[in-house]
Amino acid sequence: MLQLPPAEPGMREDEVDTPALILDLDAFEANLDTMAALLKPTGAKLRAHAKTHKSAVIARLQMQRGAVGQCVQKVGEAEALAQAGINDILVSNEVVEPRKLKRLAALSSIARVQLCADDPAAIPPIEAAAEAAGIRLSVLVEIEVGAKRCGLEPGAPAAELAARIAGSKHLTFGGLQAYYGSAQHKRQPEERRQAIAFAAGCVEQTLDALKTRGLDCPIIGGGGTGTFAHEAASGLWNEIQAGSYAFMDADYARNVEPPPFRQSLFILAQVMSAPKGTGRAVVDVGHKAAPVDSGYPLVAGRPDLAYVGASDEHGVIEAKDGPLPVLGEKLRLVPAHCDPTVDRYDWYVGVRKGRVECLWPVTARGLMT
Amino acid sequence: MLQLPPAEPGMREDEVDTPALILDLDAFEANLDTMAALLKPTGAKLRAHAKTHKSAVIARLQMQRGAVGQCVQKVGEAEALAQAGINDILVSNEVVEPRKLKRLAALSSIARVQLCADDPAAIPPIEAAAEAAGIRLSVLVEIEVGAKRCGLEPGAPAAELAARIAGSKHLTFGGLQAYYGSAQHKRQPEERRQAIAFAAGCVEQTLDALKTRGLDCPIIGGGGTGTFAHEAASGLWNEIQAGSYAFMDADYARNVEPPPFRQSLFILAQVMSAPKGTGRAVVDVGHKAAPVDSGYPLVAGRPDLAYVGASDEHGVIEAKDGPLPVLGEKLRLVPAHCDPTVDRYDWYVGVRKGRVECLWPVTARGLMT
Repeated sequence: MLQLPPAEPGMREDEVDTPALILDLDAFEANLDTMAALLKPTGAKLRAHAKTHKSAVIARLQMQRGAVGQCVQKVGEAEALAQAGINDILVSNEVVEPRKLKRLAALSSIARVQLCADDPAAIPPIEAAAEAAGIRLSVLVEIEVGAKRCGLEPGAPAAELAARIAGSKHLTFGGLQAYYGSAQHKRQPEERRQAIAFAAGCVEQTLDALKTRGLDCPIIGGGGTGTFAHEAASGLWNEIQAGSYAFMDADYARNVEPPPFRQSLFILAQVMSAPKGTGRAVVDVGHKAAPVDSGYPLVAGRPDLAYVGASDEHGVIEAKDGPLPVLGEKLRLVPAHCDPTVDRYDWYVGVRKGRVECLWPVTARGLMT
Repeated sequence: MLQLPPAEPGMREDEVDTPALILDLDAFEANLDTMAALLKPTGAKLRAHAKTHKSAVIARLQMQRGAVGQCVQKVGEAEALAQAGINDILVSNEVVEPRKLKRLAALSSIARVQLCADDPAAIPPIEAAAEAAGIRLSVLVEIEVGAKRCGLEPGAPAAELAARIAGSKHLTFGGLQAYYGSAQHKRQPEERRQAIAFAAGCVEQTLDALKTRGLDCPIIGGGGTGTFAHEAASGLWNEIQAGSYAFMDADYARNVEPPPFRQSLFILAQVMSAPKGTGRAVVDVGHKAAPVDSGYPLVAGRPDLAYVGASDEHGVIEAKDGPLPVLGEKLRLVPAHCDPTVDRYDWYVGVRKGRVECLWPVTARGLMT
């Protein structure tokens, strides 16, 4: 189902139909510039994570500012971006299904694509897909660095898998994937610093084991919006995979000493019901439009208002003090978590100085496989 | 972005690409038949809620079994279903934006459409849209019956709004919207019974006030999968708006004396990482593919396995006893909440006896406005 955009260029923001994803272009561009400026002296390059923005336009804006390419989590995201002209894509994730691997190998004809593995048993299907496509696929070894999700044990086991990859006629060892996801939202700066110090130990241990085997390690990838400064300063990581920095969200704002970026992404909501005498107003943004995996959205610029309950298509707003918004009023919400929020929308509505400036498709929106 | 289906008819279920929405056709058809059989002796008609299934195919199957039409929550859903041939649609929700009202009025040329209002201030824009389209729009008055969301005070205030609608040249009073959403998941049967007894009191009070004004009340709509038996038996409600009954989910299964329907909807997941010695397997279904507003999904038919953590594209599985699933293995998950889960997918993969039988588009998938 094609979804028409909720706005047209030139409209006032309060004319945009709701729910809509609003991108404050001044804040957004400042975020891209800030990240480029922060990474420049470190020598680490940005390979921005497109699982956040899912947009070929935004990928291009990041690469114009020095990003070497994009990360994705899904083969479908790689396809969407490659087909829209993004030419260097790392699937920073394991792919084990032969059908998906065939699609990924086919993409090599239009973009440089790489993927991750964390298990010797995952290698034969990757080799088979590369062989069938007549290409060499670059495979990074994902190591466990504290996140307790995917990833092989660092050190000798990881180096053994790297050697297995490097020894294949159809594969190239691309480097290490060393991302500590859950460190991004550790609330205290010292917790985040310690987490990445631990991850750095895992990386060093694995580099030693690779050296013993005479293996070079082209990429060391990792780092998100909450911790990237540590990875970039470590002298180990050479590719930073931050994504949320472009938008920010309420959950990152809860970090003590939050990352130095501005809130650029909002959900525009409209009051659809304001039942008299009840102390509540109801907006048309429920948890289908504002996923609640990281809690409820905030009401932007209105600390007097709180979003206190979500059902499928309704959000309940209460006033801490002062009046409630009135029927038909539009409110900007700050998403609790930008990645799953963006994934619900077909369009970014780019706004500057209160007017719609551009409409960008969410190129890889909702792509599952 | 068009998303290709993750399967083809004739495939074995374990060949379906993941994440995918699996519809067990035997269980699904049994659910449709059960609801039709349960409502028949009550005289109440089904107006199934398409915010759950978002599918023109499923709407048609429900109407073939006696449903008088469909409910939706969004104008975009009404458009998608009407354009696919569904000819009687109630937007069981308030619509206040003139741009949306214009679209809804335009739909009247291909389907019977109705909507709800709960505020006198909402009426002039609805009148204006109807007048501009040269039609009469039918408007139901939504009354508060305990859910504490939208809805006008029952009794005289609701009847006053009904009279305002009935007195308009461009509108028709369509009846009452009396849905107690939060009653559906009250865990104890007695709590659900009491909730609907309270709602029935609100309806009766409003019917009395309507009678005083000489107003007929064509539709009394409400009832969901958790409580519909009470509304249907009350002799008040004549349209039942259940949606989840077709699929069921883990949250409904937590009701004591759950509704008499079978689990027919599943998310197919694949183990993408099974790091040795860690006690976990990681599947490719995170909270983007299985929304967590009502908790985590369950692993279908595998009480020995638990889904214990979700990030964007990863789900962590632990074994309570016995072995973990292996790399590449596919598992059926029971969604925690069927409505937002369906809304993430472009395709239903209909399965019978282990084979893919059909692929149905999720017609109104993700439609926001």
